[in-house]
Amino acid sequence: MFTADITVNSSRLQADLEELAGIGRAEDRSIYRMAFTEADMQARRWLQDKLRTAGLEAEMDGAGNVFGKFPDRPDEPSVMIGSHLDTVPAAGPLDGALGVVAGLECLRRIKEENLHPDRAPVELVAFSDEEGRFDGGFFGSRAVRGSLIPQLIHEAADFDGTTLVEAMTSAGLEPLAALAARRPPGSIRSYLELHVEQGAVLDSLGLPVGIVENITGLFRWQIRLIGKADHAGTTPMGMRCDAFQGLAEFAGEIPRILEENDGEESVATIGFIRLLPGTVNTVPGEVEFSLDIRDIDRQVLDQLADTFRRALSAIARRRGLMFEFQELSSVEPVACDRKIVEAVSSSVESLGIEAHRMNSGAGHDAQVMAEIVPAGMVFVPSVGGRSHSIAEWTHVEDIVAGANVTLRTLLQLASTER
Amino acid sequence: MFTADITVNSSRLQADLEELAGIGRAEDRSIYRMAFTEADMQARRWLQDKLRTAGLEAEMDGAGNVFGKFPDRPDEPSVMIGSHLDTVPAAGPLDGALGVVAGLECLRRIKEENLHPDRAPVELVAFSDEEGRFDGGFFGSRAVRGSLIPQLIHEAADFDGTTLVEAMTSAGLEPLAALAARRPPGSIRSYLELHVEQGAVLDSLGLPVGIVENITGLFRWQIRLIGKADHAGTTPMGMRCDAFQGLAEFAGEIPRILEENDGEESVATIGFIRLLPGTVNTVPGEVEFSLDIRDIDRQVLDQLADTFRRALSAIARRRGLMFEFQELSSVEPVACDRKIVEAVSSSVESLGIEAHRMNSGAGHDAQVMAEIVPAGMVFVPSVGGRSHSIAEWTHVEDIVAGANVTLRTLLQLASTER
Repeated sequence: MFTADITVNSSRLQADLEELAGIGRAEDRSIYRMAFTEADMQARRWLQDKLRTAGLEAEMDGAGNVFGKFPDRPDEPSVMIGSHLDTVPAAGPLDGALGVVAGLECLRRIKEENLHPDRAPVELVAFSDEEGRFDGGFFGSRAVRGSLIPQLIHEAADFDGTTLVEAMTSAGLEPLAALAARRPPGSIRSYLELHVEQGAVLDSLGLPVGIVENITGLFRWQIRLIGKADHAGTTPMGMRCDAFQGLAEFAGEIPRILEENDGEESVATIGFIRLLPGTVNTVPGEVEFSLDIRDIDRQVLDQLADTFRRALSAIARRRGLMFEFQELSSVEPVACDRKIVEAVSSSVESLGIEAHRMNSGAGHDAQVMAEIVPAGMVFVPSVGGRSHSIAEWTHVEDIVAGANVTLRTLLQLASTER
Repeated sequence: MFTADITVNSSRLQADLEELAGIGRAEDRSIYRMAFTEADMQARRWLQDKLRTAGLEAEMDGAGNVFGKFPDRPDEPSVMIGSHLDTVPAAGPLDGALGVVAGLECLRRIKEENLHPDRAPVELVAFSDEEGRFDGGFFGSRAVRGSLIPQLIHEAADFDGTTLVEAMTSAGLEPLAALAARRPPGSIRSYLELHVEQGAVLDSLGLPVGIVENITGLFRWQIRLIGKADHAGTTPMGMRCDAFQGLAEFAGEIPRILEENDGEESVATIGFIRLLPGTVNTVPGEVEFSLDIRDIDRQVLDQLADTFRRALSAIARRRGLMFEFQELSSVEPVACDRKIVEAVSSSVESLGIEAHRMNSGAGHDAQVMAEIVPAGMVFVPSVGGRSHSIAEWTHVEDIVAGANVTLRTLLQLASTER
């Protein structure tokens, strides 16, 4: 195949990443490009300018998603590549941005080499609010999938109380137009996303690329254990109903529970805790905490939910505590499309690099897209596993390797008969 | 002894408690009489009025402590009885108030029965800032003991940033005059304090009176365990340095450590916890928590401090965490004076009631006074162990029983040759 040797223009790719990182960058160089803020919208305009400069078509849908297309074949089902432009507060330069900028570079290389006519059209997407400033995340890809309803748009608000409607309106968007962002069935052939790993697996293996096989599912609970607040001096140990001691015992059982449920890839995290009354000299009468459980297998997740519930209930009963829990969120695990995984794998081989087959522990737009089209992901290492932080980084060689894998995979996907 | 049958005037005692509870009472009936607030000063004036109405002498020293005396023998060493008038925010009606009002009632009964001339003079004290709005507690008794220094007075401030100097000045007190509140050696013969238990031991035994043998000592640490904040989805369990899991393991060892150190009466409490970053989807990189350890034996406390330090250090080492700790405070345990304990005990017998010999798990002015004079305490039950709360209560019969025990003990102490 005459495209076998194609690679991205790495200096252009780096320059674009640096330009984009300048949008919403604070004095300490961390990036604030939260969904529908002025910086986010500026990045969306920047991307459209870049696309047009490259002779491509740029448009934004009602959800704020930016698309880049080849102008000649607008109605044919496309192979879509992309990620998101929004960031968490105080972000680094790569989460989301890398997939969008690398996708832009792929489209430009395809255009420069005039590789397009023989294949399905390739389309770039920069999804909006992947990070979940409003309503839990993946707003743009959910809009494309067709999962939005007016109630959700009207009720969503961020932590500061700004509503989605207010934010979209000041960004110059008509909130309810997001409903029309749904893409008709058959208009997308497949979806490919290049992303930083956000974990330390590739970095610790010293490998430049990860081939993603599954994207983890999760459930998140908010749990309350309720005992009795008592004086820390006057209440003998045997007379206490210490809610925190209940949590400590539960936390100690997490490793055992994960091991007993065969979830080699399962992870469980207690990341938020609030003690009441929370004073030095009072036995905690109540503790509220979060439990975040992830696995790639729906059945393992169900088993874990069941086991954790039983463990909590046994601890509560034994310690005279009441317990309440509430599901905060739940995301289905998805498997990446086999053909895409194999296409990524052969692109890796063609480049003579080594890659690691792995799962994604974080959620991605690819997870949302996987419900309507075959989807896949390519990872590059996060140095030290850092992400959602100014410390986020990927070595340039790895960025280039990931972009090249993505470009070659994209060309394979656009060639494949469906 | 012709005083053997003496008892307090229980309706007058109850009426006084109710009157005093009205000072600083909020709409929900909880009491706000924090040290040197207007309500606290009003209570101090109220007490002085009551003393003068009863034909007793009333004075306030430079620390805001109110004293009640028999006017005829001002210079003889006195048997002191009392407690404190200040409260925590949202307090109940008895903590501190009971000991002061019962002491007032004792002085009145002694005067009414003209029992004074044959004995050492009896003196009432209502200490200031026992609850520690400023500088850790026991301000008034520490002033009397002679433990204040100008630096402390100048530096003390409450949680809202109000300084002790500001608060005392607006209360009409000259802050540095607290230094002159020190009582000359020999001017006090002994100190007796009636107080609510603030725990549930007497209530669960169904006994009206506790004879306090020891007042617990304590140390309080602020501990930080430092690991690594990582993504809760992308960081495999084996790659984590989860600071909270370190705390959970430590918390789980508390019962074992207490048992192994023979501290039958030892208690240990983790009452405050802060996770960083404290978000649902991040492995906690850092946890800060308090450890409050109490026992009546200095040696046991030292052993416990040592064992807890070693346990923390082993857990930190094994889990790849750093650990730091800081002593927040430390209070020496004190034994109540044997003769006073026996005097309380014989008063209990003379009243035909049953009492429980016990230790105080909370700190009291008696602990401070014990360093300069023989001191003792009488407890009455706290219903359900509640204290520092609007739920604080003691059944009227038990209040009266405690006051009678106190009155009879006081008369014994004033009779005893020294």
